[in-house]
Amino acid sequence: MPEGTPELLVVGERPDWYLERLASEFTLHLLPSGRPEELDAAVAQRVEALTSGGVLSGELIAALPHLRLVAHGGAGYDKVDVSALRARDIRLTNTPGVTDGCVADMAFALLLAVGRRITAGDAFVRARAWESGDFPLVPRVHGQPIGILGLGRIGQAIARRAAGFDMPVFYHNRRAVEGVPYTYCETPVDLAARSTFLVVACPGGAATHHLVDAQVLEALGPDGIVVNIARGSIIDEVALADALEKGVIKGAGLDVFEHEPSVPQRLLDNQNTVLMPHRGGGTFETWRDACDLVRANVRAHFAGQPLPTPVF
Amino acid sequence: MPEGTPELLVVGERPDWYLERLASEFTLHLLPSGRPEELDAAVAQRVEALTSGGVLSGELIAALPHLRLVAHGGAGYDKVDVSALRARDIRLTNTPGVTDGCVADMAFALLLAVGRRITAGDAFVRARAWESGDFPLVPRVHGQPIGILGLGRIGQAIARRAAGFDMPVFYHNRRAVEGVPYTYCETPVDLAARSTFLVVACPGGAATHHLVDAQVLEALGPDGIVVNIARGSIIDEVALADALEKGVIKGAGLDVFEHEPSVPQRLLDNQNTVLMPHRGGGTFETWRDACDLVRANVRAHFAGQPLPTPVF
Repeated sequence: MPEGTPELLVVGERPDWYLERLASEFTLHLLPSGRPEELDAAVAQRVEALTSGGVLSGELIAALPHLRLVAHGGAGYDKVDVSALRARDIRLTNTPGVTDGCVADMAFALLLAVGRRITAGDAFVRARAWESGDFPLVPRVHGQPIGILGLGRIGQAIARRAAGFDMPVFYHNRRAVEGVPYTYCETPVDLAARSTFLVVACPGGAATHHLVDAQVLEALGPDGIVVNIARGSIIDEVALADALEKGVIKGAGLDVFEHEPSVPQRLLDNQNTVLMPHRGGGTFETWRDACDLVRANVRAHFAGQPLPTPVF
Repeated sequence: MPEGTPELLVVGERPDWYLERLASEFTLHLLPSGRPEELDAAVAQRVEALTSGGVLSGELIAALPHLRLVAHGGAGYDKVDVSALRARDIRLTNTPGVTDGCVADMAFALLLAVGRRITAGDAFVRARAWESGDFPLVPRVHGQPIGILGLGRIGQAIARRAAGFDMPVFYHNRRAVEGVPYTYCETPVDLAARSTFLVVACPGGAATHHLVDAQVLEALGPDGIVVNIARGSIIDEVALADALEKGVIKGAGLDVFEHEPSVPQRLLDNQNTVLMPHRGGGTFETWRDACDLVRANVRAHFAGQPLPTPVF
């Protein structure tokens, strides 16, 4: 790229095509590990803008004295040290909206995979077990009530998909949403009690920490299946493992975990779970669109123009 | 059951609860293997009605001189020797409609499992591979065109589910269907060329044998995924394995196979397949409803009333 293009620090790993897309406009400095001690000292002194993916630590922010903009790639920024940014009046942008459809697709992929036992059935066929007997029957999926915890953009995309499966849609939110044809439930327990499939779709952070606990799982009941495509912190993972092992609920489809990428051995050992490595938004189209929003925010910052998608 | 209740020969395996449901009305004779040589000679001489599940051979029909009714459990009866029945004017009933929703659910479970690589992602997490790297990105599912081969009841249930995923729906049928908002394609090749996901949903039998051949797969192309929840005979399995191995198409989600329960080793070895043991209709609700339709047909036969769901 030409000299004099603005510098951008890229925190975390990115595919090559993603870096090339950024490099067409900015001079990149890469910090795949996110660790400040691996950063070139001269670069650290100069950097005014960075783009983060998952974690952005207070230590790294402290190591960048001229940082003015964090262009986060992703809708959720619960692993960004927001208070460190606010303390120095550093702006934060995110990439809202671009992942909604793909995350809703993942919710249904997991719901159907657990409900129809796709991973178990596939293993059954590959082991040639079919040649000596039939795979067990399961309850049907369509027509069963679905409870959506968090009826934001992703929750509503999930609800639209549920309509094609003739599923009555219930939801819980901090408050009822105007103008939607779905039934509001006052509490997560009430929502779980009405649902066969409980799909977690609310933001992470302190306000929703362990919102799905032992009591909610008890209310979901022995035919119930929980799906989480939001944030691992929302489900009490110990309570979930207990509930699965004791038959308090039937199964779980999880794309997110409390301590990613580490997954509790109890969830790995359970035969009624389907587990994905946080790939709800993991499509080329989503990453391309997020990359373009990151570019637009960084570009606007250096041009002194309003940020397209500011958090603050 | 009381003496004098009508006798019913049950051909093939059934769960205990299913047999109890039949035994409440009929005196049952069980023939799990379907082989005439395992049949009691006196029973064979008397039996007037049987219920079949998968295969019903001409040999067995020939061994039952007083057979008047075959109440088949299932919508498709391509493994029933229909000509042997017609030759002796034996009536055939099936259980249409009861499986439609569950088979359409399976179509979407497979479509999403292949599209979002659920079985591969689950194996990745369980092997703890996530702790040393990220799972690859994939193309998005929603918004991609879906081609439905056979727009009958199951095909239309699939199309309704596709609407929630914002997928443009194309279809091919012997003739265009009146009053549907989907785009008709004149040939399977034309359908495949317009589709990212090609879903096979037509009846089996001679008329559709190898309807999906090398040419159709070539038209589907390297980003294309084929899903079959109908009958294994509709896809040329050798051509499919070739296409998968050479990257002519990207992947396949299969619930049915040409020589069930035997599945070709080449499909088992392929990493871009998701394979299920013919469980599209494999739900408690579907089997219960099918059982009740079988009962109703057998009951009507012995009462001399019109058969509720006759094939002929």
